[in-house]
Amino acid sequence: MNSQALASAQVKANILIDALPYMQRHYGKIIVVKYGGNAMISEELKEAVIHDLILMQLVGMKPVVVHGGGPEINDLLAKLQIKSRFIDGLRVTDEATIGVVKMALMGKVNPDIVVHINRHGGKAIGFSGIDAELLQCRPLPDQPELGLVGEIQRVNAKLLLTNLDQGFIPVVAPIGCDSEGNFYNINADYAASKIAEALRAKRLMLLTDVPGIYRDAAHKEEIIPEIKINEVPRLIEEGVVAGGMIPKIKCCVEALMAGVDGTNIINGCQPHSILLELFTKEGMGTMIVR
Amino acid sequence: MNSQALASAQVKANILIDALPYMQRHYGKIIVVKYGGNAMISEELKEAVIHDLILMQLVGMKPVVVHGGGPEINDLLAKLQIKSRFIDGLRVTDEATIGVVKMALMGKVNPDIVVHINRHGGKAIGFSGIDAELLQCRPLPDQPELGLVGEIQRVNAKLLLTNLDQGFIPVVAPIGCDSEGNFYNINADYAASKIAEALRAKRLMLLTDVPGIYRDAAHKEEIIPEIKINEVPRLIEEGVVAGGMIPKIKCCVEALMAGVDGTNIINGCQPHSILLELFTKEGMGTMIVR
Amino acid sequence: MNSQALASAQVKANILIDALPYMQRHYGKIIVVKYGGNAMISEELKEAVIHDLILMQLVGMKPVVVHGGGPEINDLLAKLQIKSRFIDGLRVTDEATIGVVKMALMGKVNPDIVVHINRHGGKAIGFSGIDAELLQCRPLPDQPELGLVGEIQRVNAKLLLTNLDQGFIPVVAPIGCDSEGNFYNINADYAASKIAEALRAKRLMLLTDVPGIYRDAAHKEEIIPEIKINEVPRLIEEGVVAGGMIPKIKCCVEALMAGVDGTNIINGCQPHSILLELFTKEGMGTMIVR
Amino acid sequence: MNSQALASAQVKANILIDALPYMQRHYGKIIVVKYGGNAMISEELKEAVIHDLILMQLVGMKPVVVHGGGPEINDLLAKLQIKSRFIDGLRVTDEATIGVVKMALMGKVNPDIVVHINRHGGKAIGFSGIDAELLQCRPLPDQPELGLVGEIQRVNAKLLLTNLDQGFIPVVAPIGCDSEGNFYNINADYAASKIAEALRAKRLMLLTDVPGIYRDAAHKEEIIPEIKINEVPRLIEEGVVAGGMIPKIKCCVEALMAGVDGTNIINGCQPHSILLELFTKEGMGTMIVR
Amino acid sequence: MNSQALASAQVKANILIDALPYMQRHYGKIIVVKYGGNAMISEELKEAVIHDLILMQLVGMKPVVVHGGGPEINDLLAKLQIKSRFIDGLRVTDEATIGVVKMALMGKVNPDIVVHINRHGGKAIGFSGIDAELLQCRPLPDQPELGLVGEIQRVNAKLLLTNLDQGFIPVVAPIGCDSEGNFYNINADYAASKIAEALRAKRLMLLTDVPGIYRDAAHKEEIIPEIKINEVPRLIEEGVVAGGMIPKIKCCVEALMAGVDGTNIINGCQPHSILLELFTKEGMGTMIVR
Amino acid sequence: MNSQALASAQVKANILIDALPYMQRHYGKIIVVKYGGNAMISEELKEAVIHDLILMQLVGMKPVVVHGGGPEINDLLAKLQIKSRFIDGLRVTDEATIGVVKMALMGKVNPDIVVHINRHGGKAIGFSGIDAELLQCRPLPDQPELGLVGEIQRVNAKLLLTNLDQGFIPVVAPIGCDSEGNFYNINADYAASKIAEALRAKRLMLLTDVPGIYRDAAHKEEIIPEIKINEVPRLIEEGVVAGGMIPKIKCCVEALMAGVDGTNIINGCQPHSILLELFTKEGMGTMIVR
Repeated sequence: MNSQALASAQVKANILIDALPYMQRHYGKIIVVKYGGNAMISEELKEAVIHDLILMQLVGMKPVVVHGGGPEINDLLAKLQIKSRFIDGLRVTDEATIGVVKMALMGKVNPDIVVHINRHGGKAIGFSGIDAELLQCRPLPDQPELGLVGEIQRVNAKLLLTNLDQGFIPVVAPIGCDSEGNFYNINADYAASKIAEALRAKRLMLLTDVPGIYRDAAHKEEIIPEIKINEVPRLIEEGVVAGGMIPKIKCCVEALMAGVDGTNIINGCQPHSILLELFTKEGMGTMIVR
Repeated sequence: MNSQALASAQVKANILIDALPYMQRHYGKIIVVKYGGNAMISEELKEAVIHDLILMQLVGMKPVVVHGGGPEINDLLAKLQIKSRFIDGLRVTDEATIGVVKMALMGKVNPDIVVHINRHGGKAIGFSGIDAELLQCRPLPDQPELGLVGEIQRVNAKLLLTNLDQGFIPVVAPIGCDSEGNFYNINADYAASKIAEALRAKRLMLLTDVPGIYRDAAHKEEIIPEIKINEVPRLIEEGVVAGGMIPKIKCCVEALMAGVDGTNIINGCQPHSILLELFTKEGMGTMIVR
Repeated sequence: MNSQALASAQVKANILIDALPYMQRHYGKIIVVKYGGNAMISEELKEAVIHDLILMQLVGMKPVVVHGGGPEINDLLAKLQIKSRFIDGLRVTDEATIGVVKMALMGKVNPDIVVHINRHGGKAIGFSGIDAELLQCRPLPDQPELGLVGEIQRVNAKLLLTNLDQGFIPVVAPIGCDSEGNFYNINADYAASKIAEALRAKRLMLLTDVPGIYRDAAHKEEIIPEIKINEVPRLIEEGVVAGGMIPKIKCCVEALMAGVDGTNIINGCQPHSILLELFTKEGMGTMIVR
Repeated sequence: MNSQALASAQVKANILIDALPYMQRHYGKIIVVKYGGNAMISEELKEAVIHDLILMQLVGMKPVVVHGGGPEINDLLAKLQIKSRFIDGLRVTDEATIGVVKMALMGKVNPDIVVHINRHGGKAIGFSGIDAELLQCRPLPDQPELGLVGEIQRVNAKLLLTNLDQGFIPVVAPIGCDSEGNFYNINADYAASKIAEALRAKRLMLLTDVPGIYRDAAHKEEIIPEIKINEVPRLIEEGVVAGGMIPKIKCCVEALMAGVDGTNIINGCQPHSILLELFTKEGMGTMIVR
Repeated sequence: MNSQALASAQVKANILIDALPYMQRHYGKIIVVKYGGNAMISEELKEAVIHDLILMQLVGMKPVVVHGGGPEINDLLAKLQIKSRFIDGLRVTDEATIGVVKMALMGKVNPDIVVHINRHGGKAIGFSGIDAELLQCRPLPDQPELGLVGEIQRVNAKLLLTNLDQGFIPVVAPIGCDSEGNFYNINADYAASKIAEALRAKRLMLLTDVPGIYRDAAHKEEIIPEIKINEVPRLIEEGVVAGGMIPKIKCCVEALMAGVDGTNIINGCQPHSILLELFTKEGMGTMIVR
Repeated sequence: MNSQALASAQVKANILIDALPYMQRHYGKIIVVKYGGNAMISEELKEAVIHDLILMQLVGMKPVVVHGGGPEINDLLAKLQIKSRFIDGLRVTDEATIGVVKMALMGKVNPDIVVHINRHGGKAIGFSGIDAELLQCRPLPDQPELGLVGEIQRVNAKLLLTNLDQGFIPVVAPIGCDSEGNFYNINADYAASKIAEALRAKRLMLLTDVPGIYRDAAHKEEIIPEIKINEVPRLIEEGVVAGGMIPKIKCCVEALMAGVDGTNIINGCQPHSILLELFTKEGMGTMIVR
């Protein structure tokens, strides 16, 4: 190693050492990552997320992945020429639709993530909410007209804990079941939140397509780094949190109330945003805390 | 209970007691069941197979299910208007085809079996050959032109054994992977045979659409109850074992040579044929033994 | 298998499947069976009881046997020409008598049951209340004049639980001890009841020589299928429960109050009455519940 | 404590300390003790043996007791007026006789030892060779005319090892069984020897009514302290080892050949002879070694 | 063995048997022994203490040793010509002094005890309060001017319990640490007391240079055998407990209040005083109890 | 985070990800580090080594530290005015000298390393070769005149393996013992090598004061990156390996022959040289391999 190489190596060593206190802080902790949106589409971003997950596991964390898959579902619905019925703008999940959701999520998105992790040296297993009745559901009590959209009644935490203890990264497709043999489509943010609760996770991280919650949504200049749970109602009222961000932040609030230590809304389109959130002082995106 | 009811109950008790020695013989043993064909289509037969599996588990056996799914694959290929290319009559599995196979098996057939077992009180988990690299494959060395059709190189037996020990019924979709991230379509009989080998199973049971191997295929009157491994070449030569039965019997022979105790070719269209084979003196279909 | 054999086999399979929900309900549960009376004398009935116990174990239950042995005790007292002294019609257990009780129960009845279970493929171990101080006793505080008749002070549940977990059927002779080295004769129904309590058993089953509790003891036509704990005082007052049935039902009540889920008084003279009670909808004899 | 008491206490402390190296040498080792003869009859000797066993266990050894019971058997045969048939001077064990042997050993001798150990603070469990098929037998192949006298075919070592590991002292009545449900009378020295073999015991100690093997049987002055296995044939030929001592020494030789480290023939009539053998330099009686 | 040797051996056996109830009483219990003073200097006394510790372990107790080392510290301070500063007669522990204390205790006294135990067949490991932060300290809040004299804030009981369970005798040098990397000198009686509390020990034994607490300190004739916790204030007031005995008895009182069962102040100069206290009816020195 | 901060964070993330394959390669492996020389003196270098050890542990490696302490020994010898006797230029270790070695290593160097690791969040325990007889020695057979210099006869690997499994970093002072209670001074490189052998370590890393083995010792320009075991004799003969490097390379060769996978001679004066060796492609210093 010449002196230049040495200097560069030295910089690397210092960066590893700088990460030490963050590794210590998160050691042995369960981190539930909702993985979806554009971060699933770009090969480069996918690669970055997979690497982050494997590194997390290597330094002693216990990541759990819950994934979405909207584009694949839409794509398959289109190919199979299945038309969706909508009620108040919400898509009804009938038997034909849930069949497509199952194929898209369990037969495409989930195995693709699992294979990616495994080929990079991680040890992943794909699950859906029907395995050992991982996610027991009933129809949404307030919106039964939406059909097979599931409200989670019970999470089989033991299944995931056992697999985490054996060193696996569980990758969960958000499809649930009930005791009559029906399948349910579950919102992935919501599934991640309920799983984080059941596992008494330290963190819930929602990967989205935006950098976080903007202080001023119109100008998109500054991200709010931290929101306390009691500020949330006001932020919704003021329209700072709006649109699709409202259900996301509600998932965070529910998880926090049930004992999860911290929740993040971060930008999946920023490579290694998970690592940057966990391993830097400034963090990434918006953190919601108690 | 009146005297008639009592007499009938007594008959039931005697039947349970008659099953005792068979239960004792199979106690704690791993039984790999290849489940496919018409037994997967009729709701009534499906129900019977599920019940058989749950009963096997309750009386102490450790069943493992490997399923096929040809009709669902064909159906989905048709709907998606994907044309298959054929070489010498064999279908080539290209990228588009394997995508359909994944969706049909992992997103439809597998979860349907898992949910069925669970709703009847069993505890099933769905796996495919990619979970924790359960089935590591390479392309068929002699027929590379068939594309993503897999030869199994290594089975992660520990994954299945751990789940069996925890009281689960593993349900395996015959899809493999390699270290480059490719998926492979695997013949289900063959996958079941390799899994039985790796688990040092006591039995390999192939559910087919015929009652067994006929002594005289033309008249289909009498089933050969037992074939010794050394009789197989002659039976093939004489045409007693012919057509689609040849690869099946070869799977049996391979499993036997690798240490599996016994193999069965039985009729999935006969309700409870698994139970009848395991719990009666006469058994069902044709048994191939060393 | 010809078509007639097949039809008959099919019936058998259906009966096994019908038993499935009962097997599931009792899976892993501890069932304490008091075995005594005529069911111990007839070879055929003995065979049936042994088979029932082995089947219970095979399908995942944990049976514990507590046996009596009155006839053998009387027989040996007669042969050894030991006269019994009686107080108010109750036999006094003096040193000579307890010596005979020990020989009859521990040296004859108990090993005969153990050997029977083992030769039919079960795994039984014989215990008495002195092994690891399983049943610690003192003389009956209200009837000290009866001598070495024991009231149970403490049950070493761990000894039985450990052996159950190792897959053994414990067979218990109702002989107790105290810290001074005395032996005590214990009523077998009572011993079974205290053991059921200590093990937090699901069921206590008392095998008797009658079909259950008659609604009208004079005409012996109809058995009361179920009695609630709060009906017992009235039934005793009305004479429906009378004579030797009173202490039996009191054992059931005590066990229920201490947490046992259900208790049965069933006819040991009806072959497989244990199975019929556990595996049929109608059940057998009289069930006493909370 | 005054100075005299202190001096005396000091002596006690020194004696305990002197025993230290012997305790260390035997720590964790299995010692099989055949307990029989006059040491079973005198209350004082019985007390001494029980204390020795408890002390052995407390200082970390794992004692296993195998007991005889000839006098009790003879006594009960007489009381029941059962005449014995003899062939060449050896008693035939017919059905009636084995019934008496079972009652005397399992219903009297065994529980009396168990209760004695327990009331002095040890933790004993009584076993016979039928429990979990501990001692599987067949009739003596060379002397079938002796009836139910057993040759041991297989010892269930696991049963005893599990109980030793849980801190129990197993007390074994030498009664065996076969797979047809027959009981067998087994010579206690022989049973102890086979059990020592199966447990890979460190020591086999046979308690007898004589101080050891006399160098000159006529004058009974000097005991041979140690005999090497290869000297035994000569000693038998010379008549030094004669009569009832021959089968005893043969049991020792068999155990040694099968891996037991050392065997002792010691005087059960000398109080604490077990302790004196184990804890003093000179030892007691005659030791037979490889 | 001739008759004289036999008689003497018999006496030994009786003494061992007499110790039985004491062994049973202390079986499995943790005993914390503060070892210091003259008992550490005389080779003969050291030997006796080591033997006592090994015997305690062999008969099932779990001894923990906490040692002092004043003379070695003074000796090394002198050799290195380090002068001590005193405040109100108490020595100040500055950086230079703590360096000497570390060398004397961790580099001399501790390894000498460990090696002694090991060469006599015990299994000892040396620890100090810095290993796995066994003794976390802060400066004495009331006397900060004394410098690096530690008040114990937290004891890592798990470290010692794990090693006790693996059959080791932990030997602890009373040196503590804080989270800034400072070392602290800790009074050995006090360290032993806090360790006994944290381990929920059965006993705390302080070895001193006097036979116990005299009823009349002037005449030193009679030792008070037992003091109840509520008598302590009066005894201090009356001057019966005085001088250096006051902090010792305060350590005992604190340990008792925190759940330790009994505490002893005994004479380390009396050979085997530990054994004599534990294994005789009269005991040794003064016992303080609740 | 502004865009500059983000770019910089991104660089950090990439460096962490670059380290991934190295972390995976060393995961779960035992790495024995000999820590000595100037790297022990500079506070900054000490800090860097401690950080490296903690990071190694966090990412799943199992580091074991063996330390030297020559300067501290010389310093203390001087202060205590102990003169050393020399034979052929080698210092004789007599009783006085070993006493100083013990104090310097066990009472100063070892606890200082342990405290450093613990205050940075690692979990360290200090050991010496006498704890549970970790390093059993005899005098050097070829140089008995050197006195208490130890040749290692047996390493108690279990002690270290147990502590590694509990997540501790063992820090070992190279002081041995024998069964007579003598202490021995052991060369630290040699102790590290024998420990690496006994633990079947993956790596032995010797931290020295030079950058590695120079291709041309005179000009010290180029380090030989890798030496095969069979090149060593020639390199010694040619003088490339000379002086104090000869015993070091012999330790490496011995460890390799006994099964250690690789050995390094690296520069302790280069901050984070351990990390740079383990986590970069080029590595550091000279690697000796089979």
